Amino acid sequence: MIPASVSDYRLLAKKRLPHFLFEYIDGGAFSETTLTRNSRDLQQLALRQRVLRDVSCVSTASTLLGQPVSLPLALGPVGIAGFNARRGEVQAARAAEQAGVPFCLSTVSACSIEEVSAGTQADFWFQLYMMRDRGFLQATLERAWAAGCRTLVFTVDMPVPATRYRDIRSGLSGGSAWQRQLARVCQVLARPRWAMDVGLMGQPLSLGNVASVLGDKAGIDEFWRWLGENFDASVTWKSLETVRQHWQGKLVIKGILDSEDAREAAQLGADGIVVSNHGGRQLDGALSSIVALPRIVDAVAGELEVLLDSGVRSGLDIVRALALGANGVIIGRPWVYGLAARGGAGVRDIIAIYEREVRVAMALTGCSSIAELSREILTTDTLTLD
Amino acid sequence: MIPASVSDYRLLAKKRLPHFLFEYIDGGAFSETTLTRNSRDLQQLALRQRVLRDVSCVSTASTLLGQPVSLPLALGPVGIAGFNARRGEVQAARAAEQAGVPFCLSTVSACSIEEVSAGTQADFWFQLYMMRDRGFLQATLERAWAAGCRTLVFTVDMPVPATRYRDIRSGLSGGSAWQRQLARVCQVLARPRWAMDVGLMGQPLSLGNVASVLGDKAGIDEFWRWLGENFDASVTWKSLETVRQHWQGKLVIKGILDSEDAREAAQLGADGIVVSNHGGRQLDGALSSIVALPRIVDAVAGELEVLLDSGVRSGLDIVRALALGANGVIIGRPWVYGLAARGGAGVRDIIAIYEREVRVAMALTGCSSIAELSREILTTDTLTLD
Amino acid sequence: MIPASVSDYRLLAKKRLPHFLFEYIDGGAFSETTLTRNSRDLQQLALRQRVLRDVSCVSTASTLLGQPVSLPLALGPVGIAGFNARRGEVQAARAAEQAGVPFCLSTVSACSIEEVSAGTQADFWFQLYMMRDRGFLQATLERAWAAGCRTLVFTVDMPVPATRYRDIRSGLSGGSAWQRQLARVCQVLARPRWAMDVGLMGQPLSLGNVASVLGDKAGIDEFWRWLGENFDASVTWKSLETVRQHWQGKLVIKGILDSEDAREAAQLGADGIVVSNHGGRQLDGALSSIVALPRIVDAVAGELEVLLDSGVRSGLDIVRALALGANGVIIGRPWVYGLAARGGAGVRDIIAIYEREVRVAMALTGCSSIAELSREILTTDTLTLD
Amino acid sequence: MIPASVSDYRLLAKKRLPHFLFEYIDGGAFSETTLTRNSRDLQQLALRQRVLRDVSCVSTASTLLGQPVSLPLALGPVGIAGFNARRGEVQAARAAEQAGVPFCLSTVSACSIEEVSAGTQADFWFQLYMMRDRGFLQATLERAWAAGCRTLVFTVDMPVPATRYRDIRSGLSGGSAWQRQLARVCQVLARPRWAMDVGLMGQPLSLGNVASVLGDKAGIDEFWRWLGENFDASVTWKSLETVRQHWQGKLVIKGILDSEDAREAAQLGADGIVVSNHGGRQLDGALSSIVALPRIVDAVAGELEVLLDSGVRSGLDIVRALALGANGVIIGRPWVYGLAARGGAGVRDIIAIYEREVRVAMALTGCSSIAELSREILTTDTLTLD
Ligand SMILES: Cc1cc2nc3c(=O)[nH]c(=O)nc-3n(C[C@H](O)[C@H](O)[C@H](O)COP(=O)(O)O)c2cc1C
Ligand SMILES: Cc1cc2nc3c(=O)[nH]c(=O)nc-3n(C[C@H](O)[C@H](O)[C@H](O)COP(=O)(O)O)c2cc1C
Ligand SMILES: Cc1cc2nc3c(=O)[nH]c(=O)nc-3n(C[C@H](O)[C@H](O)[C@H](O)COP(=O)(O)O)c2cc1C
Ligand SMILES: Cc1cc2nc3c(=O)[nH]c(=O)nc-3n(C[C@H](O)[C@H](O)[C@H](O)COP(=O)(O)O)c2cc1C
Repeated sequence: MIPASVSDYRLLAKKRLPHFLFEYIDGGAFSETTLTRNSRDLQQLALRQRVLRDVSCVSTASTLLGQPVSLPLALGPVGIAGFNARRGEVQAARAAEQAGVPFCLSTVSACSIEEVSAGTQADFWFQLYMMRDRGFLQATLERAWAAGCRTLVFTVDMPVPATRYRDIRSGLSGGSAWQRQLARVCQVLARPRWAMDVGLMGQPLSLGNVASVLGDKAGIDEFWRWLGENFDASVTWKSLETVRQHWQGKLVIKGILDSEDAREAAQLGADGIVVSNHGGRQLDGALSSIVALPRIVDAVAGELEVLLDSGVRSGLDIVRALALGANGVIIGRPWVYGLAARGGAGVRDIIAIYEREVRVAMALTGCSSIAELSREILTTDTLTLD
Repeated sequence: MIPASVSDYRLLAKKRLPHFLFEYIDGGAFSETTLTRNSRDLQQLALRQRVLRDVSCVSTASTLLGQPVSLPLALGPVGIAGFNARRGEVQAARAAEQAGVPFCLSTVSACSIEEVSAGTQADFWFQLYMMRDRGFLQATLERAWAAGCRTLVFTVDMPVPATRYRDIRSGLSGGSAWQRQLARVCQVLARPRWAMDVGLMGQPLSLGNVASVLGDKAGIDEFWRWLGENFDASVTWKSLETVRQHWQGKLVIKGILDSEDAREAAQLGADGIVVSNHGGRQLDGALSSIVALPRIVDAVAGELEVLLDSGVRSGLDIVRALALGANGVIIGRPWVYGLAARGGAGVRDIIAIYEREVRVAMALTGCSSIAELSREILTTDTLTLD
Repeated sequence: MIPASVSDYRLLAKKRLPHFLFEYIDGGAFSETTLTRNSRDLQQLALRQRVLRDVSCVSTASTLLGQPVSLPLALGPVGIAGFNARRGEVQAARAAEQAGVPFCLSTVSACSIEEVSAGTQADFWFQLYMMRDRGFLQATLERAWAAGCRTLVFTVDMPVPATRYRDIRSGLSGGSAWQRQLARVCQVLARPRWAMDVGLMGQPLSLGNVASVLGDKAGIDEFWRWLGENFDASVTWKSLETVRQHWQGKLVIKGILDSEDAREAAQLGADGIVVSNHGGRQLDGALSSIVALPRIVDAVAGELEVLLDSGVRSGLDIVRALALGANGVIIGRPWVYGLAARGGAGVRDIIAIYEREVRVAMALTGCSSIAELSREILTTDTLTLD
Repeated sequence: MIPASVSDYRLLAKKRLPHFLFEYIDGGAFSETTLTRNSRDLQQLALRQRVLRDVSCVSTASTLLGQPVSLPLALGPVGIAGFNARRGEVQAARAAEQAGVPFCLSTVSACSIEEVSAGTQADFWFQLYMMRDRGFLQATLERAWAAGCRTLVFTVDMPVPATRYRDIRSGLSGGSAWQRQLARVCQVLARPRWAMDVGLMGQPLSLGNVASVLGDKAGIDEFWRWLGENFDASVTWKSLETVRQHWQGKLVIKGILDSEDAREAAQLGADGIVVSNHGGRQLDGALSSIVALPRIVDAVAGELEVLLDSGVRSGLDIVRALALGANGVIIGRPWVYGLAARGGAGVRDIIAIYEREVRVAMALTGCSSIAELSREILTTDTLTLD
């Protein structure tokens, strides 16, 4: 099959990756209710088809947090994304750079901040989780700044990690240590191409930014344990003030789904928020981010930038989010599918797919520039006989 | 597969149990409309994701009917649950005791009241059906009291047993005596592990509490017949008054789905009610219990405790029910799946799964204690333009 | 499998009957939208579970068109029903008689009016289509009266026969004469039991009441042709007046789905109507009969009896229809499935299934008599916060 | 299988055509949300069943754009339809002529205007896309007029071609030139009948009307490229005025889905519009055309004729569209399925299927003439208590 869409890349990734790794990326929390809702709610939002407006010059250019972008889309922070292709985050960051969109590195990336920085020219964003080890936190922020990161994405929807049933089933986090090892080895052997290309040639498969703490040889189990023990669930808006004061660059709060929390972020002086349910990986049962968006936009209108992620699977979804007031969107799984399937070229293709679709959707709703995308291009008409 | 969820344990149970036994547990009345509704309606209820509230100390502790519990959940009364593992109710009662949640023994359990009492330290609850044989009724109540039961669960939604198509199809209750025998023998032989572990080693497979009446050797067919003939459909609120007067402990009416009936229960002086449609096993077409809950809570607010069962399949469902005003929930099938799959250890794991999920859901809705769970954490927002 | 429900009998019938015959019974018009709606809309109607009302003496007895019945249900007119078992209509009429419910013979039955009359004691109903050949019409009415029929069911929703795609596909009515013959012969050979029992031993397989016109040897193709050519599409309410004047017994208009038409029937002086879309076999896209019912009941309340058919698949559906104001229901396909699967015994079992379910549903909604079934026992509650 | 419906012909076409050709016809834009909505929304619109009105003389005759038609249906413009059967458009145009309904030739047809004109007696309609090459545009209009076309269908919903994932996957437009060639050759070899009948005997397989520009030997890839490069996205209502002034015949604007655009068309002086989302092939996420229809009809009532296409799959759908105010409908894929399955005879059968269904639906809603089809025959009744 010649891949045409995000869902096609998903299938290719499934064929390429060891089972537990694919399940880790693909899955959501508990019953995956919110995971399902995310894309479905986006897809159901209807657009108005308009005709005979001059759309010979459609431009998808915009800005995100003051930075010019070719498309209002960023590659979101994804933990251990680098396990999906050899030195994965570097490949992805380069693809983003070539496409003219921001790349955001996760705290728990495979490649370290420095490695990504060395491999790319463009600035990238850095995402931080609040960790108990404040020394680590401080040091990491300094490394990010030194590497040229000027946008800090602070993720707040993971005070505790939710359970993802699929990770237990696959042996990533469930069962005894022995069961886990066995299951994973078998699954790796069933994917010799990945085993060779990433497992062997892509070493070290550790967490670049945490290696200083955990050591280079730390396996996936140590990582889980460290993460589990180090997430700081006591953080409040109050604690964030310190971060705000010490970070000179842009500060984006990621994981807002409620208008009351959005107001708090505005009061804190954040530059942006990401309306997100962590891709349906945390609070199962939460609203889809697109349903949460309008009330949040209304609550903070103009005070800060509003990005949206979770479930954005096509350029049409980007147009929908922008029409409802988002300044841009973030994608998580989609770029990782691309990376797993075809490395950097896959990531580039994924971005190109989104771009092409945005362009078509703009032309067919009669808009030539991103600024024209407003609630005007949406409709909730249904059939009525009156 | 390493089981991660209730649905995983369901599959394991299916592999372990003779067909007719699994179908008996798993099935619902008639077309299973209500059975399906129960979980689906729960799952659709959306929770508000809240962030940056200190959730470092989440406690799931609460009380049920005056009794402290580690989690507001009880193992509900399930007939012949003890056929699913060797001396099953004892194993389950022990698991509940270890987890710090109440266990409720059914009238028609395999292990007798005395056997369960001997096998556990903690008090357990006892469930009673109104039987024509009032002598049996009286005697049973006395045995329960003597065994230390202080909470009586009086089930009222089974004046007549509904038809469950699956039981007819499987040969549990359908076909000629000869057909039934043959079907069951074949199905048992197809599950040698169960046949050995429970069928042979777990004898007697009779109804512990009814043995005095039916005799120890009474087979499953005698049991059905006795039940069918002994259910008393003439009971009214009036008749319940006698029970109320004679029972010194807590009295809980199980099987309320209508606010008018809830008011009657309050007037009777019941200590609690269970909002329930018997897990979709009685009136097919009835509302799901979660849809029925709010009006009932409003009707009896504060006068008695309101428990809910039917369809609770995850910790998120517990949080949903509590948010809508329930004091706690009861699970039926889920613990039996655990018991069938792995005996007492399975039951413990099932409870642990619920507990972990409640904990995560509380953290992510920003609640540290059970008392904080209120309608505030729910949302019915949908997508609207302007 | 031991059959427990109407859907189980449907599967048995499918195994027993030649393909084209099963498709003829089972199918609906065009895209089968209305066929699907009929059962689904019934199933979605929620019942109120009520408890602790004395339901030790539940009676399902009632009357239909002045006639006492054990259950307010009748076996509806089904064309060539008699092809599904040896001398099928006689077997079915006997089963109805034994169960104490009315049987209605179709104009286009296999067994003639006289044959059914000879085989049963109880009166049965007779259904008439308006035919161009008024001599045939007149003669048929006289035969029916002579045979003891006192209730005439006049079907009005088939001025033209709709297309049923399945009949074309199966070769019953589609393709060239040669294709049809071949397809049907092959399908009969694939069901040797039917071929022997009905095809050979059940001769003549003609249309008993039309034999006078068509002759005894007329095949299925002649039958279709005669029907197609003889349906009279010019009939109006006016033309019905003559029928009303000449028929001394009860007159029921079958195929009303609109309240305006229901009022016309009342004005005509009909004794009853059947709210029906012909089991989804005529106007695909029409409302389900249960959705149409309430407005019709309101329009003619008390002026005539209102029966309902189309999609009634369980005793719960009967209770739903009665609760919304119907005096009784008619079933079409269900009894034919029973007949095809097991002859008269199958029909008896089908009626018994409905009866048992009505009884349970009455007990669990707290009703002891049919007269108590009212809108009171239904609920449209949905989940709302505040 | 003996084909009975449009969906049956779809299956036959699938068996007959090379994969990429079937996918090209069958597919829609992006996620095919709108494609799915089109038929589903039509199907859900309920009709009122009316009885005992004289429907012995039902006539489906009507007029479309001043022209008498046997059924208010036209065969819509479909690019390269002629690749589906030998000299396909000629066969289809003849079938339409025989059935008494209009045929509309696409700009990008296989057979040229002149070839179709030579093969038929009746006038046909011609569809035009706005092309950058205004010389080509002018010349084509003159050729159409010379060939006797008096109705010009100007398609406006394709300023840019949308992506259809299926075409990329199938190798029609995706992958490298080499991949595409290989995929297509294999797919053709898998359909020897098509390869012989159309691929070999049906030469030239070029674009008849564009051959003057592209040359006779231009392959499918040249065609795509030319199309892609020649669509003129700068056209506005203003530019259409020239077309309006120069075209002496009827002018129909195809691709209107919004009432504001419909008003523009009326102001331009168009004779008709086609409410259409291009069969779900352009703006995925757009409303279904049937949902868009009522507001458009209200906006332009009486000023011009309103046709509808996209998703019309049965005669019932025609009746629905007419009841909501359309003057007629257009079908795209359905007639191509017929053509691919059985050539001209298939097209005739498809039209006959629609005709029969319209006739039945009219009879059963109590209408004898097309003029009687109004909102009166529709209902949005749902189940409500009290
Ligand atoms: C495998 C995986 C790992 C993730 N790791 C992180 C992370 O380390 N930090 C973070 O802030 N978000 C993380 N996320 C969430 C994403 O940044 C983003 O919010 C989410 O994936 C968006 O939803 P989508 O995948 O539907 O596009 C992760 C998501 C996935 C799928
Ligand atoms: C196999 C089975 C047997 C049951 N037996 C009893 C019983 O003996 N007494 C009783 O009050 N409820 C009985 N119930 C109902 C349960 O107590 C409880 O109401 C129901 O299972 C809750 O729904 P759930 O299974 O969806 O959690 C039984 C349920 C099942 C599944
Ligand atoms: C195979 C078949 C043949 C039928 N023939 C007749 C008939 O001859 N006369 C009539 O009035 N109704 C006829 N009907 C309609 C039934 O009387 C009844 O309205 C319909 O079957 C009720 O829907 P149900 O099948 O969903 O119960 C027929 C129905 C079926 C399924
Ligand atoms: C394969 C295909 C090719 C098409 N080519 C054209 C075209 O060349 N010009 C045009 O105006 N519309 C074209 N259309 C759109 C149709 O005219 C029509 O709007 C659409 O097919 C109606 O939807 P339906 O297929 O659901 O009936 C095409 C449609 C299909 C399926």
